Amino acid sequence: MIKIYGKNCVYEAIFAKAKMEVFIEDTQVKKDKNILSLLQDKKYKYTLLQKKDMDKKFGISHQGYGAIREDYQILDESYLNTFKKECGRVLILDGIQDPHNLGAIIRSVDAFGFDLVVLPKNRSASLNEVVAHVSTGAIEHVKLLYVNSLLTACNKLKENGFWICGTDAKGNTLAKDIDKKLSLAVIIGSEGFGMSKTLVNASDYLITIPMVGHVNSLNASVSAGIVLHDLCITKDEL
Amino acid sequence: MIKIYGKNCVYEAIFAKAKMEVFIEDTQVKKDKNILSLLQDKKYKYTLLQKKDMDKKFGISHQGYGAIREDYQILDESYLNTFKKECGRVLILDGIQDPHNLGAIIRSVDAFGFDLVVLPKNRSASLNEVVAHVSTGAIEHVKLLYVNSLLTACNKLKENGFWICGTDAKGNTLAKDIDKKLSLAVIIGSEGFGMSKTLVNASDYLITIPMVGHVNSLNASVSAGIVLHDLCITKDEL
Repeated sequence: MIKIYGKNCVYEAIFAKAKMEVFIEDTQVKKDKNILSLLQDKKYKYTLLQKKDMDKKFGISHQGYGAIREDYQILDESYLNTFKKECGRVLILDGIQDPHNLGAIIRSVDAFGFDLVVLPKNRSASLNEVVAHVSTGAIEHVKLLYVNSLLTACNKLKENGFWICGTDAKGNTLAKDIDKKLSLAVIIGSEGFGMSKTLVNASDYLITIPMVGHVNSLNASVSAGIVLHDLCITKDEL
Repeated sequence: MIKIYGKNCVYEAIFAKAKMEVFIEDTQVKKDKNILSLLQDKKYKYTLLQKKDMDKKFGISHQGYGAIREDYQILDESYLNTFKKECGRVLILDGIQDPHNLGAIIRSVDAFGFDLVVLPKNRSASLNEVVAHVSTGAIEHVKLLYVNSLLTACNKLKENGFWICGTDAKGNTLAKDIDKKLSLAVIIGSEGFGMSKTLVNASDYLITIPMVGHVNSLNASVSAGIVLHDLCITKDEL
């Protein structure tokens, strides 16, 4: 079970039909006329709590909304065998450790129309309440998969018709120059060390983000956001 | 005084000639052959400490490098009177409260060639050690200014020839379509509420970031990164 909190987080979980027990701050019901009828309509068990009890249960960032939710579904590694280009686009995270970064990245993944996030079992932030909160509920709409080896995952995706787009300061391709019609699997490296060399070598493209300042790298969630934005197929382009 | 920690943070502070006393983990000196000669060359007072003492003084994310630095220089509000287009480009932050976001944004400001960050006195994360650390030292290279009124600051910038570029989900302009030769002052709204209405009304352009997912907003530092990236004048374009 996982605690989730914040208005967007709880609403998105309701829309995604997550199994959970919901807690609403009693004063919130007057400000948000829809929440109770929505919860009743969707047959959720809920409890009204005073602010002090909400704070105690969910910390100070709950905005009047909290829930005890079943753990997020993690797909089985074999799912990659069936993940063909019709299934969508992939983001591979090579060792993102900071839950703030992971949450912000999952938010961008949803916003820019990617579908699956692949993470290594041993070197990733776990899917905790901070990740869920920072994702503002986007985590409900993104498929998540942990694998033993990212290289094996990349090779499987290649077999299935995907083009692997690494990101590296030494890259030579701008994201906006990549053909958006291709089936794409983008890799973002870890906060401290970037992408591992084996994944650089496995990449069909190496995307770079031109910079002109003193510090020659970006926050990992900012890098991911820029690349996914540049590769996003907008509604006008469909 | 402010504690700074992390290899990049301390190195950037040295390059920026910040006034500070430096602390290095004793075992780090073997791995980083340059640091002691650099400190001696730049005439910094430094102390070698054991890991346990570094941890006690700087927490667990110091990577062997820490310093007690004088507070960051905050420019006086009157500085805006003299900030003309030759002085650079401006980012206005309308109420960023999260130090992680502020640090990541300052990193992008430096990376994409912006020069001045304007913040409101009353509704901003303060420039603490988390901001410095997340900026990985970029904070040393960015001018910072707190003002009483962002609207007054916008009007002053307009008088000085700047075009105000707000960002809003209801905007109608893509950042990449704005003429990069203009003198630009970009506004990014707060995490929870976006830009205030008075600043939306004061904007010459309203930039939007097209999204296609369920959740219709991005992390503030991701939004800022995407817009600054799209407006960045790269070395090839100079």
